[in-house]
Amino acid sequence: MKLFLMALDFVGTFAFALSGAAAAVKRELDIFGVLVLSFVAATTGGILRDVLIGAIPPATLADWRYLAISLLAGILTFYCFPLIDRLKSPVQLFDAAGLALFAVSGAQKALAYGLDAPMAALLGMLTGIGGGMARDVLVGEIPTVLRAELYAVAALAGAGVVVVGGSLNMPSTATMLAGALICLGLRLGSIYRGWHLPKARSSKSAIRNRNRQ
Amino acid sequence: MKLFLMALDFVGTFAFALSGAAAAVKRELDIFGVLVLSFVAATTGGILRDVLIGAIPPATLADWRYLAISLLAGILTFYCFPLIDRLKSPVQLFDAAGLALFAVSGAQKALAYGLDAPMAALLGMLTGIGGGMARDVLVGEIPTVLRAELYAVAALAGAGVVVVGGSLNMPSTATMLAGALICLGLRLGSIYRGWHLPKARSSKSAIRNRNRQ
Amino acid sequence: MKLFLMALDFVGTFAFALSGAAAAVKRELDIFGVLVLSFVAATTGGILRDVLIGAIPPATLADWRYLAISLLAGILTFYCFPLIDRLKSPVQLFDAAGLALFAVSGAQKALAYGLDAPMAALLGMLTGIGGGMARDVLVGEIPTVLRAELYAVAALAGAGVVVVGGSLNMPSTATMLAGALICLGLRLGSIYRGWHLPKARSSKSAIRNRNRQ
Repeated sequence: MKLFLMALDFVGTFAFALSGAAAAVKRELDIFGVLVLSFVAATTGGILRDVLIGAIPPATLADWRYLAISLLAGILTFYCFPLIDRLKSPVQLFDAAGLALFAVSGAQKALAYGLDAPMAALLGMLTGIGGGMARDVLVGEIPTVLRAELYAVAALAGAGVVVVGGSLNMPSTATMLAGALICLGLRLGSIYRGWHLPKARSSKSAIRNRNRQ
Repeated sequence: MKLFLMALDFVGTFAFALSGAAAAVKRELDIFGVLVLSFVAATTGGILRDVLIGAIPPATLADWRYLAISLLAGILTFYCFPLIDRLKSPVQLFDAAGLALFAVSGAQKALAYGLDAPMAALLGMLTGIGGGMARDVLVGEIPTVLRAELYAVAALAGAGVVVVGGSLNMPSTATMLAGALICLGLRLGSIYRGWHLPKARSSKSAIRNRNRQ
Repeated sequence: MKLFLMALDFVGTFAFALSGAAAAVKRELDIFGVLVLSFVAATTGGILRDVLIGAIPPATLADWRYLAISLLAGILTFYCFPLIDRLKSPVQLFDAAGLALFAVSGAQKALAYGLDAPMAALLGMLTGIGGGMARDVLVGEIPTVLRAELYAVAALAGAGVVVVGGSLNMPSTATMLAGALICLGLRLGSIYRGWHLPKARSSKSAIRNRNRQ
C-alpha cells in the first residue's frame, strides 16, 4: 500500500515536472529556469500537503528521488521539446495527469494522518492544484485553476472518491485508481470536449459563451 | 471568548471571500474561477497564521464551515454582481473589512498560543494581509499592500491594540472590537479621504503627489 | 557558533531587504510598499526554511531584530536611493549577497536540526532563492531564479560546501565562509562576466545566444 502511494506520487511528480518544464521552454527560459520550474511545479503540491498535515520535513524534500525525477523530466523536456510539442497542449495534458495523481495521493495521505473525511478531500484538492498554481504564478500567468472549467472540481471529485471509499472500508488501491481515472476523465473531457457544469441561471456567462462561438 | 473569536473569523472569511469573488468577476473569470479565488482569498491569511504558530491542521481547513462560507460568498457575488458593483470599489471595501477582522483575530490567536507581544502583532498583520496578497498575485496584479497607503500599517495598528490590551489584562472582546474599528477606520480613511502618514522629507513622493492632483 | 549563524542571518536579511526595497523604489511604490517589500524579500526564505524543518515559530518572526533590520534597510533605500542607484544593478548585487548568506545559513540550520546531507543542501538552496522569488512575484516579474544563469546552481553549490564540510567534521565557521564566497563568486561571475554552465548539446540555446550578440 505504502509502495503504491509512493509510485503514484512519483508518477505525479514526473507529470507535473513535465508540465512545468514545457511551460518554461515555451517562454524560452534556459536550462536553469527549466529545471527550477520543473522542480517547483512538481513539489509545491506535496510540500503544501505535508506542511498542512504536519508531516515535517515534507517527503518531497526528504527523499532525493523526487528531486531526481523532476530534474530528469526537466532535462528530457529541454532536449526533446520538438517531440513533446507535437502533442496538443502538452502543458495541459501533463498537468491533468499530475492533478489526478496528486489529488488522490493527497487525500489518501491526509486520511492516513487521521484527518476527517471532508478535510481530507479538501487537502487532496489543494495538493492537486498547488503545483500548477505555483508554476503559472512564477511565469506571470493567471493560474489554470482560475480560468479552466472542471479543474478544481475534477480534483475534488477524485479526492472525494478516495475519501468516500475509505469511509466504506473499500481497498484503497482500488479507490485511488478509480479516483484518479475520474479526475483525469473530467479534466480531459473539459480540455478536449469543452465539458462544463450546467450554468443555466447566469445570463452573464451565457452571453459570454454565445460570443465565443 | 472562543465563540467570539470564531465569529470574527467567519465574518472576516466572508468579507475576504467577497473581495476575491469581486476581483474574479471583474476579470470575467467564470463561476469556477470565482469560487476558487473566493476560497484562496478567504483562507490564505488564516492558513499562514496557523502554519506559523504550529496550529496544525489549520482551522480554516479542519472546519468545513470556512469552505461553505467562502463558496456562499462566491456564489452570491457571481449571481448578484450588478448589486455589489454599485458600491464604489467593492473589492477594496470588503478587503478592508477582512483586513481588520483577520488582523485582530490573528493577533489574539497568536497570544493564545503563548507568543510574545511584538510577534503576535506581526502575526496579526500577516494574517490580515495574506489573503489579499494571494488574491492579487493570482490575478496578476501588484498586491494592494504594496501600493496602498495605510494598509499594512492599519493592520499592524489593529493587531497592536489587541496585543497592548492583552498585556494590560483588558477584556479581549473589547480590545478586539477596538482594534478592528481602528484598523477599519484607518483603511477607509485612506481609501475615501486619501489619508497617509506624514512624509515630509521625501521630495520624490512630494512630487508624485503633486502630479496626481 | 550560534552567534556566527545569527550574524550571517542578519547580514543576509539586510541584503535581501535592500534588494526588495530597491525593486520597490524602481517601480515607484511609496514608502509603505517599500517597507513591505523589504520585509517580504528579507523574511520569506527564512520562514520557508523554518516551516519546512519544523522550527515553529520561525526565527524571523520570533525575533523582532529581523523586522527592525528590514525596516531599516527599507528606510535607507527610500531616502538614499540616488546613492544606491549609482551601483550597477543594485537589486541584483544585494540579491547575490543575500542568496549566498541564506544558502549557507539555511544548510547549516537544517544540519543542526538533524536532516540528511542531500536534503540540507536542498533546503539551503530553497532558503536562498525563496526571498527573491517572493519579491519578484509580488512586483509581477518572472523571478530571477528562472531567468538567470547560475542562480539556483550557485545557491546549491554554496549549500553543498557547507553540507560536505559538515560530513567531514570540518569547523562550520570555515565551511560557511567558503560556501558563501563560492556562491557569491559564481553569482557575480554570472552577472558581470556572463558565466554559464557548458551547454553544448542544445542547438536551441546556442541559437538564442548567437542572437543575443
